[in-house]
Amino acid sequence: MLEALKEAVCEANKKLPGYGLVTFTWGNVSQIDRESGLFVIKPSGVEYDRLKPEDMVVMDLDGNQVEGKLRPSSDTLTHIELYKAFESVGGIVHTHSSYAASWAQAGRDIPCYGTTHADYFYGEIPCLRGLTKEEIESAYEKNTGLLIVKEFERMGKDPLAVPAVLCKNHGPFAWGKDAMEAVHNAVVLEEVAKMAYRSEIINPRIAPAPGPLQDKHYFRKHGKDAYYGQN
Amino acid sequence: MLEALKEAVCEANKKLPGYGLVTFTWGNVSQIDRESGLFVIKPSGVEYDRLKPEDMVVMDLDGNQVEGKLRPSSDTLTHIELYKAFESVGGIVHTHSSYAASWAQAGRDIPCYGTTHADYFYGEIPCLRGLTKEEIESAYEKNTGLLIVKEFERMGKDPLAVPAVLCKNHGPFAWGKDAMEAVHNAVVLEEVAKMAYRSEIINPRIAPAPGPLQDKHYFRKHGKDAYYGQN
Amino acid sequence: MLEALKEAVCEANKKLPGYGLVTFTWGNVSQIDRESGLFVIKPSGVEYDRLKPEDMVVMDLDGNQVEGKLRPSSDTLTHIELYKAFESVGGIVHTHSSYAASWAQAGRDIPCYGTTHADYFYGEIPCLRGLTKEEIESAYEKNTGLLIVKEFERMGKDPLAVPAVLCKNHGPFAWGKDAMEAVHNAVVLEEVAKMAYRSEIINPRIAPAPGPLQDKHYFRKHGKDAYYGQN
Amino acid sequence: MLEALKEAVCEANKKLPGYGLVTFTWGNVSQIDRESGLFVIKPSGVEYDRLKPEDMVVMDLDGNQVEGKLRPSSDTLTHIELYKAFESVGGIVHTHSSYAASWAQAGRDIPCYGTTHADYFYGEIPCLRGLTKEEIESAYEKNTGLLIVKEFERMGKDPLAVPAVLCKNHGPFAWGKDAMEAVHNAVVLEEVAKMAYRSEIINPRIAPAPGPLQDKHYFRKHGKDAYYGQN
Repeated sequence: MLEALKEAVCEANKKLPGYGLVTFTWGNVSQIDRESGLFVIKPSGVEYDRLKPEDMVVMDLDGNQVEGKLRPSSDTLTHIELYKAFESVGGIVHTHSSYAASWAQAGRDIPCYGTTHADYFYGEIPCLRGLTKEEIESAYEKNTGLLIVKEFERMGKDPLAVPAVLCKNHGPFAWGKDAMEAVHNAVVLEEVAKMAYRSEIINPRIAPAPGPLQDKHYFRKHGKDAYYGQN
Repeated sequence: MLEALKEAVCEANKKLPGYGLVTFTWGNVSQIDRESGLFVIKPSGVEYDRLKPEDMVVMDLDGNQVEGKLRPSSDTLTHIELYKAFESVGGIVHTHSSYAASWAQAGRDIPCYGTTHADYFYGEIPCLRGLTKEEIESAYEKNTGLLIVKEFERMGKDPLAVPAVLCKNHGPFAWGKDAMEAVHNAVVLEEVAKMAYRSEIINPRIAPAPGPLQDKHYFRKHGKDAYYGQN
Repeated sequence: MLEALKEAVCEANKKLPGYGLVTFTWGNVSQIDRESGLFVIKPSGVEYDRLKPEDMVVMDLDGNQVEGKLRPSSDTLTHIELYKAFESVGGIVHTHSSYAASWAQAGRDIPCYGTTHADYFYGEIPCLRGLTKEEIESAYEKNTGLLIVKEFERMGKDPLAVPAVLCKNHGPFAWGKDAMEAVHNAVVLEEVAKMAYRSEIINPRIAPAPGPLQDKHYFRKHGKDAYYGQN
Repeated sequence: MLEALKEAVCEANKKLPGYGLVTFTWGNVSQIDRESGLFVIKPSGVEYDRLKPEDMVVMDLDGNQVEGKLRPSSDTLTHIELYKAFESVGGIVHTHSSYAASWAQAGRDIPCYGTTHADYFYGEIPCLRGLTKEEIESAYEKNTGLLIVKEFERMGKDPLAVPAVLCKNHGPFAWGKDAMEAVHNAVVLEEVAKMAYRSEIINPRIAPAPGPLQDKHYFRKHGKDAYYGQN
């Protein structure tokens, strides 16, 4: 069942340590099959180098475990809310990658200071408000997902134009059209978070990159007039 | 004698360089066998890649060297005080890991700024007062251990809920139910120390993570209602 | 056609990840054959470990693609303006290397704080003004090159004595007598940017290195009285 | 001639990249044979992975090249002054290691903030005044060495108790009883410089470690009452 998807998700999870995004088991990747409405996600607490495709857990969007002997990632209910609301999203990753999580702990949006950011993220990468005591104690993981969805709607952000978010005092979620693109965006997020941190130290009066430069870089890589790469 | 324990302690010591926790020989791991009251510790000043199980030193809790041709770690007397007072602790590690030691040099507790910290440490990781001249000159290593014990008692901290401490102007000790868990906690401590450092730079007016979020993360990994991982 | 040049450019591009200068495909190297007036450049968006000499793109200085099935780097028109104006330059590299790009995002010149800088760069490494909206929207990459050329002329800088520049809110370009020297200078730039960042934190009232020390180091490695190295 | 010494110096030079102390060829190690008064040093500008024992250069303390086809390190005249004045020193290393060089660029002594420092360096690691225009232009490398010697005398520092120095706007020299110990001390210097940098950021009102703690750590590793290690 969904063998190719399990292989893809397993492989995407195994990429995390090599990209320096995770310590121990602190990250999980999933990918959805939109036809069947099922998605595949990492099992909870299993180390990446021991992961095999048959360890992957198959879930439906109601939170039922459809296949797999292991318990799914503890963040599974967050993934579900994102898949339900963000129809263009096919893959999701959560990590505690060091610079992005530091911005999340600091409770600040990452401003767009340059073209590295603008090549992938249209505008700042938002850090959401913290969950309330009630939201935390009732259904923490589900409410995390609901807050992301609600805030993206409120801010009028297209999830594929801003394919990451910071959860306050926690860490980042990133996504993309599939699991591998989600991981790719998580790598870029970490690099962008690192450079924004350093840029603010070098110039405490720094301002975001001018709008026309952000537009130029974003649209030379995205949309119908893109001219970066081979397609 | 205690062959399995010597192998476990040797292996835990050899993990230190791979995790980036030590330069040269600046770290030592031990583990106790509570039945016999004996513990096994790294020999002093020996490089990790040359360590063999038969080099390990067996000690009793009165400080007698029970087995081993090499001199035990110079921090052995600190380990002893911790094993004597912290009955739930089975393994101890001391390093000069760079970020944790920087906080120790700065003389500051590491506040809990997020869930990475809360997943492993319940509340701030304390930095103790410095030893007095008399404490240093009379029985330095023993007094280091006694201070840790006394301060954890005074603060009402459970050693397994806060499995690390910073010794002022020195560096961290971490512990766990065995040597490998102690090393695991030392890795987390270093990551948490790094992220706290960066978070304070990103937002100088940062506040600790809200209590309910700390509770949620700590208790989803620890205690009878834990639901992280496979057990 | 230009087979040796294609091999040299391919090899120089492949050096970028090993030197830690690039994430994914964020960098491109070219080298010119001054006799024919043709230059060879990396194809756009292709990963370094898959690059082969036959993938390289041959261009003329009017922007015509003379050979190669793949689309050239999106920064090709910047390379062209530099080759046209800087006759002593034989190789060019563009990256988003992390510290140099952080200075570019901060919009600051890198002051010469020491001999590491002075050994390679005579005086500060300039960060240019941002392009105007019109410059960005009309011919962004070409205007990037024209601005570098115009500013070096205005500042009276010899491109081989200051073999790098920061483009504001973007990142660095570096160059040299051939592709490999350009990459070498890009590595030095990154190291110099890193050390300048740290030096300003250590001493906020820091001043540039004295002129005689800068001269001494620059001229012991460059010009007719050089005595560093074996030639 | 001095074959064993050439092998030792070659090996010590080759250690530099692995310890992360050098970029390209930015470092050189030497060791002296006190009986013959000759010392062996790295040739200038040669990469470490290509170095062979027979490439090493043999010099006398009057600056005559006694053996070797290659030109010696451009810093050779600095090494000579140190060997002439510091009779207990048997090996010397110069690098531009990143944190130590950042302190040198900042023009600040590295205070002793903790036991990692105190285990190897008795008191702060001094950053010297810059050379005057006349000192730079007349005999730069020799005057660098003379200044180190003069300043250590003025400050009453024993070179083996403080086995490193920072040359302002330049970088560190470190030394020891032989080449390998010099390199060892250069690694410690870099780690100590890194931690001091971070500790000052974590606590801007930081103070040096108390004297009794510095004494305790220094003397448990050095002198007749040492009890660290196996001898």
